[in-house]
This record gives sequence, structure tokens and C-alpha cells, in this order.
Amino acid sequence: MQLPSSLLENAVNQFAKLPGIGKKTALRLVLHLLKQDVNDVQFFGETIAKMRRDIRFCQRCFNVSDGDICSICSNSMRNQRLICVVENIRDVIAIESTQQFNGTYHVLGGIISPLDGVGPDQLNIESLVARVEKEQTEEIIFALSPNIQGDTTIYYIQKKVHHLPCKITTIARGIAFGGELEYADEMTLARSLTNRLPVQQYVK
Amino acid sequence: MQLPSSLLENAVNQFAKLPGIGKKTALRLVLHLLKQDVNDVQFFGETIAKMRRDIRFCQRCFNVSDGDICSICSNSMRNQRLICVVENIRDVIAIESTQQFNGTYHVLGGIISPLDGVGPDQLNIESLVARVEKEQTEEIIFALSPNIQGDTTIYYIQKKVHHLPCKITTIARGIAFGGELEYADEMTLARSLTNRLPVQQYVK
Repeated sequence: MQLPSSLLENAVNQFAKLPGIGKKTALRLVLHLLKQDVNDVQFFGETIAKMRRDIRFCQRCFNVSDGDICSICSNSMRNQRLICVVENIRDVIAIESTQQFNGTYHVLGGIISPLDGVGPDQLNIESLVARVEKEQTEEIIFALSPNIQGDTTIYYIQKKVHHLPCKITTIARGIAFGGELEYADEMTLARSLTNRLPVQQYVK
Repeated sequence: MQLPSSLLENAVNQFAKLPGIGKKTALRLVLHLLKQDVNDVQFFGETIAKMRRDIRFCQRCFNVSDGDICSICSNSMRNQRLICVVENIRDVIAIESTQQFNGTYHVLGGIISPLDGVGPDQLNIESLVARVEKEQTEEIIFALSPNIQGDTTIYYIQKKVHHLPCKITTIARGIAFGGELEYADEMTLARSLTNRLPVQQYVK
């Protein structure tokens, strides 16, 4: 694609670096911005740069935060002795949007995956263990990806904290709401049978 | 969607203003940028703002340009007496990428559309007429949308320049390459029959 201006081309190249955005979409976005007010576009650029420059990570749970401690960790209405262990910030946002969880989080920053060169040392695992020890955590809930890497991570962390008087659980795996039994994979279906629930508990 | 940081939220809101990008996609883009180097993101923001601030429009053809006159208008290898009239910059880029056109352009900035409140005065029509008069243009090729608004625009401009010794043409309408006859609309099929070509000319 031959562009008539180098300024336009630079902007298109920047947008095209974003995930899921190709050259054509990037051009569409840039031509849209070209029609906007100069100050609005200036503000757009500044907001993005400021976000990256000024954003901080909670020193306790490694969630994104405007300050040293995030709004979840500093909220006394939440159960601070309940930790949900997640892979990344997106998982925190997903769980928060259910409005069903009243504890805190611990963002690992990934999961153990030797093939991708990610070992326990690159993740926020030491800080989790220290936190569980220091804060006398009552329960750790693992909400990690249901695959080998996720299971390895759970196993590794469990080994590290098994001497502590802390309950360790994982979120339920089973047939999704609206999911058809016949399209479910064998493993999920088998697990959902093994971990079946009394109907009273289900309809509660 | 509840976001844990106002900086994050502002950035997501900015991205979500772009066409075709919703809140979820915006969040994905912002979280991607969060993983990039601070300087890279700073550069991203600056490039976008600089593009909007410094970009100029060619004083002759209203294409985007780095200077007063765009690279197409200042190229002496191109036929400066042949003008292709298009609606917007995207059309220029589309035609340029065919590498089959060796003339210049004139970007109208839209087409006449009374329902959308766009009249001839809002478009670069006066400048086109002045240009055709002054430059002794040999041919105007209209490459506008094949609809009522496009036809109205062609009719209006043609009336304005019909006293000048300038050939006026429009790009061919017909069955697209790879298009199936049975799925073509009646109007296109009828036009492609009326404007049929000698085979010698077609295979040339």
C-alpha cells in the first residue's frame, strides 16, 4: 500500500503494530482521526502515553493501580484473607464484572510454561507465598487456565504453601450455562460427572 | 466493565471512540500497550498527535501531503493534464495501489448529498472548475460511488465545465472479475451489456 504522506504512513505503521489490526484497519483508524479536531487527537495521544508512563502496579497483589496499593486491596469491605490467584489483569476484570467475588486477588503475571521459557521465578509466586504466610490467609482460590501449564502452576504453588493452615481450592470446571452436552469435550463432561453437586446446592 | 485504574479507563475510553472498536477490543489494545516499553508507547502517542497536527493537504488536489503540493502533483513523470475526481483520500490510495493510473487526482471531500446536508459549496468543486480552466485539462475521469449522489455530483460538475474543451469520462461499471453472472444485480448486468466491449479491446 503506497501512502501519499510519510506522516500518514508512520501513524498507520504504529496502529498496525497493535494486535488484530492490519494495515487496512490501521488506515481506516488514521483517516478517522484525520477528520477529528487537532486537540482531540492530541489528547488521544497524550492519554495513551500518560497511561503507560504513570500507571503503577499494586505492591500487594500486582493488579494495575493508580497508587501503591490498588482499590481492591485498600477496600476494608472486602475479605482481605481470601485470595483469588489469576494469570493476568484481564482475569481480574472478568471476575470483578461478575460482582460475585468479595475477596482480593494475586496476579501471577503468567503461568509456568517451560516451553515458552516461563519458570516460577518470572512469576509473582514468592510474593504470594510471603503474603499467605504474613497475612494468615484463610483460602486461596486458583482461577487459572484449565490446561497443563495451569495445573503445573497450581501444583507448584500448592507445594510451597501446604505447610500453612490455608484452604486451597480451584474454580469449578464443568458444562457452561447454555452449553450443549453433546458438544462438550470428554474431559469436561467426565469432570462434571465426578464433581457433581446435590441439586439443593445447585439451585440455591 | 469496572476497571481497576482511572488511567487505564481513560485510555480504554479513548480507543473505544475509534470506529469499529468496542470496549472489549479497546481493553485488549490497552493491555497490549501496557506490556510494551514506556518509550515505545510514548512514541506511539506522539506519532499519532504529530500526524494530525502537521499533516497538510495539497493546495492543488486536496490529497494529504507532507508539504504544500503533494508528491503526485509535483511528479513531472505523471500526466498533469489528466484529472481523476474522487470522493476521498481512501479512493486515491485504492487507485494508486492498482499502479494503472498515471494522471493526477482531485479530492472532492465528499459527494453532493442534500439528505446529509452536503451541498456543492462544501466540496472542492469550485477549485476543480478553476483548475480545469487554468491548466487546460485534457480529460476528467470521474471515479465516484455508483449511486444517486455520485451521479448527481457528476451531473453538477459536468454542467460547470461543459463549455471547456475537456473530455469527461467515468470509470467503467460492469461485472467484477471473479463475479458470478447469476448473482449480479440487474442494473449492473444491464449496463455491462449496453457498454459491451469488442473482444480485441478486452484481451489487450
